[in-house]
Amino acid sequence: MSRATASPQTARQVPPDILPQDDPYYLEESLFAVRDRTLSLVKGLSDADATVQSMTDASPAKWHLAHTTWFFETLILVPFLKGYRPFDDTYGYLFNSYYERIGDRHPRDRRGMLTRPSLDEIRAYRAHVDAALGKLFSTRLPNSETVDLIELGMHHEQQHQELLLTDLLHLFAQNPLSPVYRMIKPGHSHEPARTDQSAVVWHEYEGGLCEIGAASDGFTYDNERPRHSVHLAPFSLADRPVTGGDWIRFIEDGGYDNPLLWLADGWALVQQENWRHPIYWRQCEGVWKAMTLGGLLPVDRSAPVSHISYFEAAAYAQWAGARLPREAEWEMAAMRLSGNAVKTANFLESGTMRPDALRAAADRQHQGPRQMFGDVWEWTQSSYCAYPGFKPLQGAAEEYNGKFMCGQFVLKGGSCATPRSHIRASYRNFFYPHQRWQFSGLRLAKDL
Amino acid sequence: MSRATASPQTARQVPPDILPQDDPYYLEESLFAVRDRTLSLVKGLSDADATVQSMTDASPAKWHLAHTTWFFETLILVPFLKGYRPFDDTYGYLFNSYYERIGDRHPRDRRGMLTRPSLDEIRAYRAHVDAALGKLFSTRLPNSETVDLIELGMHHEQQHQELLLTDLLHLFAQNPLSPVYRMIKPGHSHEPARTDQSAVVWHEYEGGLCEIGAASDGFTYDNERPRHSVHLAPFSLADRPVTGGDWIRFIEDGGYDNPLLWLADGWALVQQENWRHPIYWRQCEGVWKAMTLGGLLPVDRSAPVSHISYFEAAAYAQWAGARLPREAEWEMAAMRLSGNAVKTANFLESGTMRPDALRAAADRQHQGPRQMFGDVWEWTQSSYCAYPGFKPLQGAAEEYNGKFMCGQFVLKGGSCATPRSHIRASYRNFFYPHQRWQFSGLRLAKDL
Amino acid sequence: MSRATASPQTARQVPPDILPQDDPYYLEESLFAVRDRTLSLVKGLSDADATVQSMTDASPAKWHLAHTTWFFETLILVPFLKGYRPFDDTYGYLFNSYYERIGDRHPRDRRGMLTRPSLDEIRAYRAHVDAALGKLFSTRLPNSETVDLIELGMHHEQQHQELLLTDLLHLFAQNPLSPVYRMIKPGHSHEPARTDQSAVVWHEYEGGLCEIGAASDGFTYDNERPRHSVHLAPFSLADRPVTGGDWIRFIEDGGYDNPLLWLADGWALVQQENWRHPIYWRQCEGVWKAMTLGGLLPVDRSAPVSHISYFEAAAYAQWAGARLPREAEWEMAAMRLSGNAVKTANFLESGTMRPDALRAAADRQHQGPRQMFGDVWEWTQSSYCAYPGFKPLQGAAEEYNGKFMCGQFVLKGGSCATPRSHIRASYRNFFYPHQRWQFSGLRLAKDL
Amino acid sequence: MSRATASPQTARQVPPDILPQDDPYYLEESLFAVRDRTLSLVKGLSDADATVQSMTDASPAKWHLAHTTWFFETLILVPFLKGYRPFDDTYGYLFNSYYERIGDRHPRDRRGMLTRPSLDEIRAYRAHVDAALGKLFSTRLPNSETVDLIELGMHHEQQHQELLLTDLLHLFAQNPLSPVYRMIKPGHSHEPARTDQSAVVWHEYEGGLCEIGAASDGFTYDNERPRHSVHLAPFSLADRPVTGGDWIRFIEDGGYDNPLLWLADGWALVQQENWRHPIYWRQCEGVWKAMTLGGLLPVDRSAPVSHISYFEAAAYAQWAGARLPREAEWEMAAMRLSGNAVKTANFLESGTMRPDALRAAADRQHQGPRQMFGDVWEWTQSSYCAYPGFKPLQGAAEEYNGKFMCGQFVLKGGSCATPRSHIRASYRNFFYPHQRWQFSGLRLAKDL
Ligand SMILES: [Fe+3]
Ligand SMILES: [Fe+3]
Ligand SMILES: [Fe+3]
Ligand SMILES: [Fe+3]
Repeated sequence: MSRATASPQTARQVPPDILPQDDPYYLEESLFAVRDRTLSLVKGLSDADATVQSMTDASPAKWHLAHTTWFFETLILVPFLKGYRPFDDTYGYLFNSYYERIGDRHPRDRRGMLTRPSLDEIRAYRAHVDAALGKLFSTRLPNSETVDLIELGMHHEQQHQELLLTDLLHLFAQNPLSPVYRMIKPGHSHEPARTDQSAVVWHEYEGGLCEIGAASDGFTYDNERPRHSVHLAPFSLADRPVTGGDWIRFIEDGGYDNPLLWLADGWALVQQENWRHPIYWRQCEGVWKAMTLGGLLPVDRSAPVSHISYFEAAAYAQWAGARLPREAEWEMAAMRLSGNAVKTANFLESGTMRPDALRAAADRQHQGPRQMFGDVWEWTQSSYCAYPGFKPLQGAAEEYNGKFMCGQFVLKGGSCATPRSHIRASYRNFFYPHQRWQFSGLRLAKDL
Repeated sequence: MSRATASPQTARQVPPDILPQDDPYYLEESLFAVRDRTLSLVKGLSDADATVQSMTDASPAKWHLAHTTWFFETLILVPFLKGYRPFDDTYGYLFNSYYERIGDRHPRDRRGMLTRPSLDEIRAYRAHVDAALGKLFSTRLPNSETVDLIELGMHHEQQHQELLLTDLLHLFAQNPLSPVYRMIKPGHSHEPARTDQSAVVWHEYEGGLCEIGAASDGFTYDNERPRHSVHLAPFSLADRPVTGGDWIRFIEDGGYDNPLLWLADGWALVQQENWRHPIYWRQCEGVWKAMTLGGLLPVDRSAPVSHISYFEAAAYAQWAGARLPREAEWEMAAMRLSGNAVKTANFLESGTMRPDALRAAADRQHQGPRQMFGDVWEWTQSSYCAYPGFKPLQGAAEEYNGKFMCGQFVLKGGSCATPRSHIRASYRNFFYPHQRWQFSGLRLAKDL
Repeated sequence: MSRATASPQTARQVPPDILPQDDPYYLEESLFAVRDRTLSLVKGLSDADATVQSMTDASPAKWHLAHTTWFFETLILVPFLKGYRPFDDTYGYLFNSYYERIGDRHPRDRRGMLTRPSLDEIRAYRAHVDAALGKLFSTRLPNSETVDLIELGMHHEQQHQELLLTDLLHLFAQNPLSPVYRMIKPGHSHEPARTDQSAVVWHEYEGGLCEIGAASDGFTYDNERPRHSVHLAPFSLADRPVTGGDWIRFIEDGGYDNPLLWLADGWALVQQENWRHPIYWRQCEGVWKAMTLGGLLPVDRSAPVSHISYFEAAAYAQWAGARLPREAEWEMAAMRLSGNAVKTANFLESGTMRPDALRAAADRQHQGPRQMFGDVWEWTQSSYCAYPGFKPLQGAAEEYNGKFMCGQFVLKGGSCATPRSHIRASYRNFFYPHQRWQFSGLRLAKDL
Repeated sequence: MSRATASPQTARQVPPDILPQDDPYYLEESLFAVRDRTLSLVKGLSDADATVQSMTDASPAKWHLAHTTWFFETLILVPFLKGYRPFDDTYGYLFNSYYERIGDRHPRDRRGMLTRPSLDEIRAYRAHVDAALGKLFSTRLPNSETVDLIELGMHHEQQHQELLLTDLLHLFAQNPLSPVYRMIKPGHSHEPARTDQSAVVWHEYEGGLCEIGAASDGFTYDNERPRHSVHLAPFSLADRPVTGGDWIRFIEDGGYDNPLLWLADGWALVQQENWRHPIYWRQCEGVWKAMTLGGLLPVDRSAPVSHISYFEAAAYAQWAGARLPREAEWEMAAMRLSGNAVKTANFLESGTMRPDALRAAADRQHQGPRQMFGDVWEWTQSSYCAYPGFKPLQGAAEEYNGKFMCGQFVLKGGSCATPRSHIRASYRNFFYPHQRWQFSGLRLAKDL
């Protein structure tokens, strides 16, 4: 085994972090559960692991730890905790991400230059802010404004938990030693009984008028609101995501060589960057392997393929004689699933750290497509845009979502790196079509 | 007067090119009217004017002349005219734009290197192909396949007519001498009686289910089809486009300095490329002037502002407390206008070569928003994507539209550089949000 | 034959332009001979040929015509011809190349955007300035200041004559039609009697103290002055330049694949730009061809290889177990040749428009290396720098040479595109090590 | 004080590392002194500090530690220590810098991605290799081949000691917290008695034939050999380097605004990168400060200015009516100094970590220019090139110096970050003219 890993933790199943909102201990318990979860993710990382930035799209783990803390300090403690003094006057500049209203900030592409403050100093920063948040709870009842902001802060931090993992995977994938973040069991690809050749089963939907977007109860982001009507033509949806085995067939059939399968901008990129396979795959003596949070492992042919760009997803769909689902199609189908679909899904808490093999039983019982939630974010063909009547958050968080509504596509359902309590059918993730470093995959759809 | 212009033609009103499809002379007459129109556009241009490529997005006038000819030669003459021999074996390589299925091609960004063949040789190429097309008509009745392809070729050529003008304007705008393409009257900006301060009047629409997309009669592109239902929330639409005067107020109010007005990607561009005003504007001794096809002229405060990117349009809308319309909103409103709206619009045939000042009368009578058609393409907030059930053209033209459905936004209504017979309410133009060299402007919308 | 060439002139031998300085008609006759020569070079070029800029390093032919004219107008007519008015007030901005002292200028990389003024307008500009120069001669005797400036202007224009040709060749090489500028006879490569296998003969030099740099008589540039002593170790010099045949052997021996032959910066470029052969070479069905001013012709194995970068030259020398000569070595050897060496060399006047095959007789009689002058500029390993006591020209021409003394290497001897009267042993040409579009080749040297 | 520094060491004076070659304990003692010195330089650095790469030109401290160790392992232990096994099979790939002959390597611009192996693992690597080197000494007497390689390895490691410091300074300069590497006393700029206004005194040299390059005794690099004759014109040399105070006057006189002072390539860079002052300077409330290894400190007006590019140095010289010295001029003047000039110079051992203020006494006694050695590397106007008769090292180290002889300029004399035993008059350092992150300054020269 490579000496590159000091002491990788073994991945394991852990309880969810955010309690249901009708639980009396909801807010305070949930907040600190989320905060602790973030810290637990950096266990085993060195100061250096937590400091280096592997590309502009990614941020150092240390930066994620600090930025999520700055968010609470800036939006909650400074305005609402009497007498609170920021931990360090320079941190506002260092850890503001993109809030023009709040002030100047360190350039995004220079986040990896910050070898100081150290990981330990950032841990101290977190402890300081957590203590102050505890004090806030103990000294006065949160009013609706602070409740809203604390909830926003928790969900914001959950988003960064996933990013911390995807950014770390990207960093480790740059290292020829293929370091192991968490020990995970090798996949099923060599188990003869399992097969990835399960034919796709198509679930049909009659379409018509339906409602999508956030229903009123529980936390949601501004970009999921308001709930509104859309009209859908009849369509069908594959009962399972596209798998590693499917993708190998796509490659072997010349998928990366045939311009007619690709969007024009995608094909330009395929040629310019010489894409021949998913970003983390490499062929080692005839075997397809993929860099994962468990190091370099054989591609699991029976698990959803991951780290796929929109361009690749669209080319695959074209090759398969199908298309990507629209956001409203996906969301409508997901709304029809039982609550069990989320509960049994492969989220961060499962500790698998990668997509599960196709599962037969659990989802089948409620008669809908399998593995809509968890495993991999599923690209839709819908551009990320404002819903009719969209109103951004007021105040400092105004810029949270709205200013990114250009050039990105919506992904749905969460992944094996997303906290379970973060996800719902109306949840809208979004990335640019060329981006490949997320736990992103796809499910096919068809017109009827 | 600058010596830069050898002999600019004076712009004047000309009849439309494509006849109504129920006219017995429709096809043949229309075809040659379109072909002649293209040639007329390069009158007065030198060989050099027609050869230089001013940026990758633009193509030389000579290339447009040749490419539209290659389109007829390749899709119609070679397969359908017995014994036809291509004019020159090298032209397929030189003048294929982006059809992977048809074959290799000269790189797009190198089109300006082709000082040979000369403009005269390309004129000879056109004459050769036109003669062969005439022969095709005389020797056999066009069947439905060739009719479809000829119609496609005509509309394709109309698209390139507009591009020829926008690309030429971009080229001339790079020249410190500000050459004049066509003499046009100076704008109304100094006429005291006219004012651009006309308050926006809002037309209200109740929304609900409606149908958009191409109805069955007449030529349409594949991307306009099929007609389908969409559900719209109630909204209102400004009765007029945003004007040059509006834009001066936006600038003077710090529009290009305030990040909170801009999409994130737009703001990055504003800073990186130091955008301070529309691309063709410059301030000369306190007066805003704009480079036009008539040379450098004072900005017309009462005419629709033009050559605006999506990023700028979206920032303006934010500043104005409004938003850009959705494509379906715009199209639904346009469908309610009388046929007069198209007939009286300021299209290429008017010869104005730039947007007209706000007009009061004509459109008012049919009680809808003014100047929806012509003058400037109007940005919508809708990404350019496939309609439900979209089927690309079959055969060589399969790549015509579909492979560009990523990252672009829809524009509606045509411009002062668009042939009148090219436009209908369902027509979908599309450009990237950063692109500024088209006759693109905007009209505001609001949620109700 | 390709239709790409309207009417290429046939290349032919013409008399030199600048008379000996002791000839009574020297100055006036020479001046107009030079001016006419420049015009003769653009015969047969279209307006487009003369307008397009194929890369930043190159300039359009029209720009060369105008810039050399602007040079006389600005440095001589405006200060010295009473009542002279510039032909056009905008030309100073358009045609100043790099003289910061003189004023602002059109960006170098945008020279190809100037479709106006046309080639004909530039011809009129030249005629206007030539008439004014004639008037200058007729109205007063030139004093030493104007004589110096007129001489500078003539030699400046000769430099641009060569650049006009190299830039045009680069432009035509971008065109898949491989246009012909001048008809030239095919090379000797297929003539069985001629061979390129002539072994290199080494001329030995004892070294020691010697003088290089410009002697006092006749026109020289500031960068050739002052004449000064250098000390040379013993060395030997190849009696002939490296030929096309030599270069094919270098390629076939893996010259472009072996990093150990290359300077580090050169090897980086080889990989980045995928250099596999000289810039204008291509392999057509097993035959090496090269783009020349006579179109695409078979590589002449017996002629000096041309259009070689310093990086390639240095790699070849390493491969051959030799090195490039130092400037002082080359110059010292050249000074020992008889005047015949220049007179019989293959310069622009010969009309060959490309390097001649190795010649046996002419140079041999004076017992020195062959073809030191003409054919190809020969790279030396000497950086272009100031000689001890270097003084730049005073006045507007101060920036002529000095500010380029960084990062470039000296080339000696002139080429088949250099006017004969432009060259002398002390002449210093200079280019960056990556540049490949000049008529540049090499001759080997060795330590003794 | 900033929290950015965990525990910066206080800089202090330490003994030199490499003993004189006639000392019986020379080789073994010197070797381990050098090895220990390198380790001592990273005291106080965190794993992250030692891992991040701030630009392609710089390398992480950890990489320097490992690469210098790989050098001994690969060139000495593997071929000469029987039974030696490399510490880790992957390290050859990771820590080879640029030796094509030895094998493939990790891309230079990706060195900062290697968060693993950790700093502690690299320390273990060093210990392993040091133990094996000790064993090599104990088991057999080094022969002349291994002595040569061990000497090369020591001097190679000294080079990397300086680079480690310059690269670390560049990294820390990217951090808005301005971390302190070693506590150093603030400069003399505020001490009223000291002045930087000392006029330059010019030392005159008669020139003529002289010898430069390495004399035979002691270790020297291949690029210093062979000693050879050069002829020099009479010149004078300033008795002191240009100071911080001088540079402030240059700035205040518009030095960065006047194109006529700059080389053309330098001026392009000044505009493109908006150079307004030396790279590590910034103006804080009217006071010029500079980032140093001791953090952000006021500019010392009386100390040599440092971190100056060749372009800046040449512009300054132009402004001052002087020029940069030639390498041979500098070397000849340095050879005339007494041995005391090196002994009393401000090298790494002094622990100052930055240039000393002008010193009056020490050097004066031997009647030559002051502070030729130490403080700052002094740019010469001489391109880095091969001496006549240059022979690269044989074997694996062949690529050490020769392949960089293109586009760089020679610097002489060593700096406050150079180990004393590393420097001699013939020593040739070399960098590109745009590079600014070295301890590089200048001394003026003039023609007589
Ligand atoms: Fe955030
Ligand atoms: Fe087209
Ligand atoms: Fe010039
Ligand atoms: Fe090294």
